[in-house]
Amino acid sequence: MKIIPSHSINSDRDARRPRVIIVGGGFGGLYAAKSLGNAPVEVLLIDRRNFHLFQPLLYQVATGGLSPGDIASPLRAVLNKYRNIRVIKGEVVDIDPAGRLVQVRRPGTGDLEAFSYNYLIVGVGVRHHYFGNEEWCTLAPGLKTIEDALEIRKRIFTAFEEAEWERDPDRQRALMTFVVVGGGPTGVELAGALAELSHFTLKKDFRNIDPTRARILLIEAGERILPTYPPGLSRKAQRALERLGVTVMTHTLVADVQSGQVRIRRGEREETVPAGTVLWAAGVRGAPMGHILAEKTGATQDPLGRIKVESDLSIPGHPEIMVIGDLAHFAHQTGEPLPGIAPVAMQQGRYAARRIKALAKGKRVPPFRYFDKGSLAVIGRNAAVADLGRFKLSGWIAWVLWVFIHIAYLIEFDNK
Amino acid sequence: MKIIPSHSINSDRDARRPRVIIVGGGFGGLYAAKSLGNAPVEVLLIDRRNFHLFQPLLYQVATGGLSPGDIASPLRAVLNKYRNIRVIKGEVVDIDPAGRLVQVRRPGTGDLEAFSYNYLIVGVGVRHHYFGNEEWCTLAPGLKTIEDALEIRKRIFTAFEEAEWERDPDRQRALMTFVVVGGGPTGVELAGALAELSHFTLKKDFRNIDPTRARILLIEAGERILPTYPPGLSRKAQRALERLGVTVMTHTLVADVQSGQVRIRRGEREETVPAGTVLWAAGVRGAPMGHILAEKTGATQDPLGRIKVESDLSIPGHPEIMVIGDLAHFAHQTGEPLPGIAPVAMQQGRYAARRIKALAKGKRVPPFRYFDKGSLAVIGRNAAVADLGRFKLSGWIAWVLWVFIHIAYLIEFDNK
Repeated sequence: MKIIPSHSINSDRDARRPRVIIVGGGFGGLYAAKSLGNAPVEVLLIDRRNFHLFQPLLYQVATGGLSPGDIASPLRAVLNKYRNIRVIKGEVVDIDPAGRLVQVRRPGTGDLEAFSYNYLIVGVGVRHHYFGNEEWCTLAPGLKTIEDALEIRKRIFTAFEEAEWERDPDRQRALMTFVVVGGGPTGVELAGALAELSHFTLKKDFRNIDPTRARILLIEAGERILPTYPPGLSRKAQRALERLGVTVMTHTLVADVQSGQVRIRRGEREETVPAGTVLWAAGVRGAPMGHILAEKTGATQDPLGRIKVESDLSIPGHPEIMVIGDLAHFAHQTGEPLPGIAPVAMQQGRYAARRIKALAKGKRVPPFRYFDKGSLAVIGRNAAVADLGRFKLSGWIAWVLWVFIHIAYLIEFDNK
Repeated sequence: MKIIPSHSINSDRDARRPRVIIVGGGFGGLYAAKSLGNAPVEVLLIDRRNFHLFQPLLYQVATGGLSPGDIASPLRAVLNKYRNIRVIKGEVVDIDPAGRLVQVRRPGTGDLEAFSYNYLIVGVGVRHHYFGNEEWCTLAPGLKTIEDALEIRKRIFTAFEEAEWERDPDRQRALMTFVVVGGGPTGVELAGALAELSHFTLKKDFRNIDPTRARILLIEAGERILPTYPPGLSRKAQRALERLGVTVMTHTLVADVQSGQVRIRRGEREETVPAGTVLWAAGVRGAPMGHILAEKTGATQDPLGRIKVESDLSIPGHPEIMVIGDLAHFAHQTGEPLPGIAPVAMQQGRYAARRIKALAKGKRVPPFRYFDKGSLAVIGRNAAVADLGRFKLSGWIAWVLWVFIHIAYLIEFDNK
């Protein structure tokens, strides 16, 4: 492995300008970059992929409603109008806070190169978390990347194809049973989309099986689905899912996952459910970069591996390093960490940019404050629940709102 | 491996109706199936995939202009309105002409099952052909499947990403050199789309490289590109490609392909071209099913592995078996085999259906005749050449025509 010494980000640009490195092109990193576009700083955005992924619609790719290209925007295309921003595809493998360097693995050759920064913004998000049962990851895939979504899509459609061939009724019933573990927004949306798929899209497509008889189980350990929403909306979401044919099982734990079956526990009772497809939407954990950050800067990780940040999103003792988005544990506003959702990441990205612009002028900014515009979750083709603070919506009107907001985002990202 | 005895196709349907098995859901097989929809026959369509691929636009997926989902239509969705048609996903591994059975490998379990037919239509198309240099297939991938297109897309975009990192100018130039081997429609369309990509789409996206300086070489062994078109259109196509920045090299052979370079020969002169990406559009050969057919029925294969068919598309001595589309060698009209293009396959599919419906009534149909509606090839975003018999079009008007025809097809396939 060749290590090449540090070199300036944009050798042809003004070397006296502060250099900002952003690691991760998700909602946080992308909004930080856009907010620094044309500002008097040099920006380097590093991501392992060359596209921004519109993760909130990933479940639609998993269930065949959208193509990967519909929810992926090339980072270069989104940012190419800002001449002070450079994008490189590579994996950040280490940081050196004293030397203010990040080590990046170059794709193809695998060489390591060091890039220097004056400010560092880290927004690399979270991975799946199986709470000590990491061996379940291939049996019950989660949904964080395009590859995850395509794998899940393949499993869902293969299950129907195999059921069409199957003559053993028990085995056929198992192939047509889908278990979604976790009643948060992703699990709710996946279960709803699976119900839509089997009850509407595939309805007439088979001769040996009836797709509308597919069983979709949504397993939630807590007392209600969508636990971060107000209880009334949880109830409405559950009723909407049940109308679509989803079986919602709260107070239910997954005791074991094996090929072709899942073992569930409700109180004292255990039950084995034969299921051809098990999908995991039950937990996340900070990306491995969080561990490197903690080790090198002395920052504190919470039990989920997120980095505890100061009220200005910086790491204690390192005002030049900020953590944003799902990887950040920000508890200065409500006492609880802010939820890992796109609006938080976007606002933190914009704040990080604003803070850097202020610091570059020797100014300060007030602490970060998340402005909650409300939460939305979609359930099937024309039902959703929305928590907009004063207004709590559900049903068709919430769905229209959800579609409208998402289309607005997609148009924003698609202006190549 | 378990072999399960023959069973009827649709056990719940009228067993006295003639049973038709169609192998392959390309243009030929799909049009045969549609033409047999609601006819007094039972149809079983078998394909290794569960979707029809709109192959003429595959080069757009390879160059990032379209998503796989844009050119793939689920076979079940296209055919679900015909209750006499059943679709199964599986691989045909053998046929038994005496017993009138096809052996199908079931996905997942790998079991073999036999399905009986009264009529068999085979339209499984062609694969790449490297003319004895099969070891080039990973170095210079061809373009026949979605997987091929995604692999090519990945190589093209990775080449630009690596060039952006590269500081050695020679290596950078090699990474930005793209060689397309074969000047038929696929090669012409790929080269044109690559030029579009580098000159327009990616123009402003990099800081270290200038994508408009990418070199695109189109290598053709014969004296002109698009050799099956009239010479005037070949010239116009070449000029259109050159205006887009493509270097067209006729009378040029590929002597060797190695990682990172391709060796070309023009007459006595040989030259090594360093090239990060080499794409193969130079030849095709009948799918392996052709060999099985020839072995089991005594049918004759031509040097490209295609099956020589009678004037009614049947195999000599087997009026109940027909071969259609790219796998068929049909030389009864012009003395030359008909070209391997979608319109031929579609017309043959319709003819096969018509013939079966006639035979089932004890009637006969006249020999197959291809009606040439003209040929089109697209070159970049607003140039194309068209050979419509009396009318030979080129430039913008041919491009508009091409787009119009393709959109009409896409709409037809998308009526789920």
